[in-house]
Amino acid sequence: MSTSAAQQPSPQLFFQTINAHQRTEALKAAIELEVFTAIGEGNTAAADIAKRCQASERGTRILCDFLTIHGMLTKQDGQYGLTLDSATFLDKRSPAYLGSAVEFLCSPMLTEGSKHIAEAVRKGGTAMEGEGTIGPEHPVWVKFARGMAPMMAMPAQLISQLVDPTGDRKLKILDIAAGHGLYGIAFAKKNPQADITAVDWQAVLEVAQDNAQRAGVADRYHTIPGSAFEVEFGSGYDLVLITNFLHHFDPPTNETLLRKVHNALADGGRAVTLEFVPNDDRISPPDAAGFSMMMLSGTPSGDAYTFAELERMFANAGFSRSTLHPLPPTIQQVVISEK
Amino acid sequence: MSTSAAQQPSPQLFFQTINAHQRTEALKAAIELEVFTAIGEGNTAAADIAKRCQASERGTRILCDFLTIHGMLTKQDGQYGLTLDSATFLDKRSPAYLGSAVEFLCSPMLTEGSKHIAEAVRKGGTAMEGEGTIGPEHPVWVKFARGMAPMMAMPAQLISQLVDPTGDRKLKILDIAAGHGLYGIAFAKKNPQADITAVDWQAVLEVAQDNAQRAGVADRYHTIPGSAFEVEFGSGYDLVLITNFLHHFDPPTNETLLRKVHNALADGGRAVTLEFVPNDDRISPPDAAGFSMMMLSGTPSGDAYTFAELERMFANAGFSRSTLHPLPPTIQQVVISEK
Repeated sequence: MSTSAAQQPSPQLFFQTINAHQRTEALKAAIELEVFTAIGEGNTAAADIAKRCQASERGTRILCDFLTIHGMLTKQDGQYGLTLDSATFLDKRSPAYLGSAVEFLCSPMLTEGSKHIAEAVRKGGTAMEGEGTIGPEHPVWVKFARGMAPMMAMPAQLISQLVDPTGDRKLKILDIAAGHGLYGIAFAKKNPQADITAVDWQAVLEVAQDNAQRAGVADRYHTIPGSAFEVEFGSGYDLVLITNFLHHFDPPTNETLLRKVHNALADGGRAVTLEFVPNDDRISPPDAAGFSMMMLSGTPSGDAYTFAELERMFANAGFSRSTLHPLPPTIQQVVISEK
Repeated sequence: MSTSAAQQPSPQLFFQTINAHQRTEALKAAIELEVFTAIGEGNTAAADIAKRCQASERGTRILCDFLTIHGMLTKQDGQYGLTLDSATFLDKRSPAYLGSAVEFLCSPMLTEGSKHIAEAVRKGGTAMEGEGTIGPEHPVWVKFARGMAPMMAMPAQLISQLVDPTGDRKLKILDIAAGHGLYGIAFAKKNPQADITAVDWQAVLEVAQDNAQRAGVADRYHTIPGSAFEVEFGSGYDLVLITNFLHHFDPPTNETLLRKVHNALADGGRAVTLEFVPNDDRISPPDAAGFSMMMLSGTPSGDAYTFAELERMFANAGFSRSTLHPLPPTIQQVVISEK
């Protein structure tokens, strides 16, 4: 492109953005129709994919072209193929299949907030009634626990490796807002002396207990049903896991929780926090920084906090030192805070 | 990124796509709140933008960061700025302001179809009842005529320059589905001997007539209210303009119309078609090829046609020769077909 063409204003990004909702809907449709699975099974022509998906050839061709344009399929000489990512996460037969996460990620409670962003910007928090997704016993978290588990196995393993590399000493672990339970379970699987106590709503803990059972660690898996802000944690924990939790609340609320965590830790104990952590510029890295919008539209006062902000919350709660650890290839980071 | 990291599957694109609807909603919210206009007026800190937009500082900061992440604002040392594109198309004070197009582009009739893509793929056409957006007298086209005019001035000028470069001879022009009328009006403005007849629904023609009045060409601007498939066009036209129309219909329907156009043309006359024209691979260029999805979800049998397909329709309708002309910087192309 010549310099003068590059400097010419173009409405292209405006159109791409105003139509971006199509991408969400096309991906949902493709998962519902099992297009990725059909291609993974060896159907590569539109006619064959259509037959397998019980759909029209014309509609299948247009959908597959759209998915190709947006990077989710390949197309060569009229034949469609899976990308590495779609083979891993979108083919039903893959152990890392994410299709079930769609039920959580596209549940009205998560997407409803996005429909009222102008109102959320005016107000400074979700335009949804009540507390949005952080209300007590919100059923969305059962969907979360069920749907998000397949993709959490990898980060959970990475965290246990980071925090307990040798896996050879007794560890009493509290897993706050455990959800599917996979973070605590990863420690228990790696370390036969690890003993886990999970906190979450009762309905969610049932999913975690199922997962602990399947992982063969149920005998070292205990639960405390209720709100992390209200239940008794007990004491003497070596580790407290706080995964994808702090972003739902404002700093004073988090500090209240972190003081409680601090009290529950044994001397020398550590809080292990998994979060979307934007840089201080709040616009990079893009996926972590962009997560703030979901918190604005879906919670009264949540945010994606910078490391400096998290560090301050932990310091105010009595922790002596926090360190930041990237967790590649995930877009999240781990903060380890020492009592 | 190391080779091994590059080869590791990542759910990143899955998440970006499943959340893509946020981008649409954030842009709509920013236009509604006049964020771009506020920044264009010189408010660059979140607090000042918030004040001008009567919004919370926290919400404004998160929205502006999100817009920056997605390329619609700049951010430097905590101060936000407009990009060239957002200054041109999203600041209300700009003559090319596109904010009013949102009412058309996000009208339920255009977006409703996108919510039922799986059903449209099964069926091979829109899941909406009736004929989708191509039903008679559909009010969405008045919104289209009003909202899309600001951005059509430039392509309209480019087409008149391409087709009638000298602008110095008598031209009888028929403008089919004229909408805002700007394509025909551009010819009339460039060539004082051009005489325009516009076809569209009556309510839409009123918008076109207003625009012709404002452009000072109302005395050479005539209208035929009704469906292009039903009304009498008259005859002896030097040019027939068919802009953004053929993509709504299937090839046989288009051929019926094109035969009628052929009959209406004088000897040596030309049909001038503006379209989204994908390459034969149907996945490039991305924006033109991706337009097919909008036709699948919003019309019974429309599509973005390749040049080979358009050429065949014109040939079947009796035209002797069609040629394809890019229209940079737009993403559309012009097909000129000779009687």
